[in-house]
Amino acid sequence: MEKFILSLYDRKNRYEANQCVCEGLRASQELYSITPELIEYAVVTNKADSSFLKGIKIFEADERVFNKISSTVSSQGILLVAKIPKLSDRPLQDTPFALVLDRIADPGNFGTILRTCVSVGLKDVWFSSTSVDPYSEKTIRSALCAQFSLNLHAYNNVNTLVDNLEKEGFQRIYRTDPSGGKNCFETGKLFEKSIIVFGNEANGISDVKDSIPVNIPMPGKFESLNVAQAVTVILFEAVRRKILR
Amino acid sequence: MEKFILSLYDRKNRYEANQCVCEGLRASQELYSITPELIEYAVVTNKADSSFLKGIKIFEADERVFNKISSTVSSQGILLVAKIPKLSDRPLQDTPFALVLDRIADPGNFGTILRTCVSVGLKDVWFSSTSVDPYSEKTIRSALCAQFSLNLHAYNNVNTLVDNLEKEGFQRIYRTDPSGGKNCFETGKLFEKSIIVFGNEANGISDVKDSIPVNIPMPGKFESLNVAQAVTVILFEAVRRKILR
Repeated sequence: MEKFILSLYDRKNRYEANQCVCEGLRASQELYSITPELIEYAVVTNKADSSFLKGIKIFEADERVFNKISSTVSSQGILLVAKIPKLSDRPLQDTPFALVLDRIADPGNFGTILRTCVSVGLKDVWFSSTSVDPYSEKTIRSALCAQFSLNLHAYNNVNTLVDNLEKEGFQRIYRTDPSGGKNCFETGKLFEKSIIVFGNEANGISDVKDSIPVNIPMPGKFESLNVAQAVTVILFEAVRRKILR
Repeated sequence: MEKFILSLYDRKNRYEANQCVCEGLRASQELYSITPELIEYAVVTNKADSSFLKGIKIFEADERVFNKISSTVSSQGILLVAKIPKLSDRPLQDTPFALVLDRIADPGNFGTILRTCVSVGLKDVWFSSTSVDPYSEKTIRSALCAQFSLNLHAYNNVNTLVDNLEKEGFQRIYRTDPSGGKNCFETGKLFEKSIIVFGNEANGISDVKDSIPVNIPMPGKFESLNVAQAVTVILFEAVRRKILR
């Protein structure tokens, strides 16, 4: 079992086994409350409270063994092995606008974004298949398992995706652009069945044809905002306008 | 030198030496552009571009040695040792409102918040002395050295701080509260010489007397927002209202 769990820290192995690792107390509680049926088993040490895992097969491990299989520096002594949910190919769920995450490379950022999507009640999220894996242990930890309650749609080519979304009734493509474009707070139609594309932390966005640049004003003129912060600003602007409610 | 650099990963040693470690290319570039005078020296491997460090003493290290002193898993082969700036005891810098960070425990969150403060042009930030250290290597990395361009004010007791801020002309104390209070987007006086207190990720805010609860609406009903995301929402609400500009 140790060897198997360690193998799941590799993306290829993860998708061959179709299983992933969720570590930590809070993330485990979230996963149990969202989709207990996906949980294969838990591994816990005696320092962890696993009493909430009703009906789940639990393996006890001593601290030494647990630290070997843990992906964290100071573990909380609890991890779950779970099935990776089928990435959805349903295109819409009453989504007022389409959030597209293009090549997000950092698992912490990706996870934070997914957690924020759940906070604001957005159900559908599109992400490029060259992003960091949403089911890597780090993305899961930082998302607190938000990826298990979203419809995540992977895409290969952003322009093909945009074409398909347009067929689904989405219109007007915005791309966040730190160097120019319209002020996001003054863009009246920002959330009207639009497609909003956020780019990679370091390299920005892939070329998206016919897209309208939109920027988040930054009075401090610091080079650019962390992509997770940028998504947060836009999502809560939709909350403020009561588009998401 | 190796031993000395490793010692700086411990808070006590850091403040005895009054020096800290800034690692990575982008963070090093930022530090050099903000306060080159604080940089004591750089350590680089041959894979790193250090040509921008004009006038800085540079030690070359081979990969093996560098990996020993690095605090990252996959290093970029560049780190700076720098003086810790004197924490400011200047109380104001034309600050429209006082941002108070109460016991932030996670260096990634703390760093992201500081980076966001610089993005929006906020100059003064207050933080409790029981927070994670703003000059830890992790906080520095995640802030991209934003802590070197802010006036950071440490405090011991939040109520004493509030009393002192009131003497400086601040009034009305808001505390972010996920469980109730006024909607932040509908709180007209949120930024009028106010004090806004954000709390610890896990335990919320210390008791702050006479404080008004304010909440960030979350249609998705996910338990609570990451504190860095919460601060981001409030700071950009100030940008949207042109309080910060």
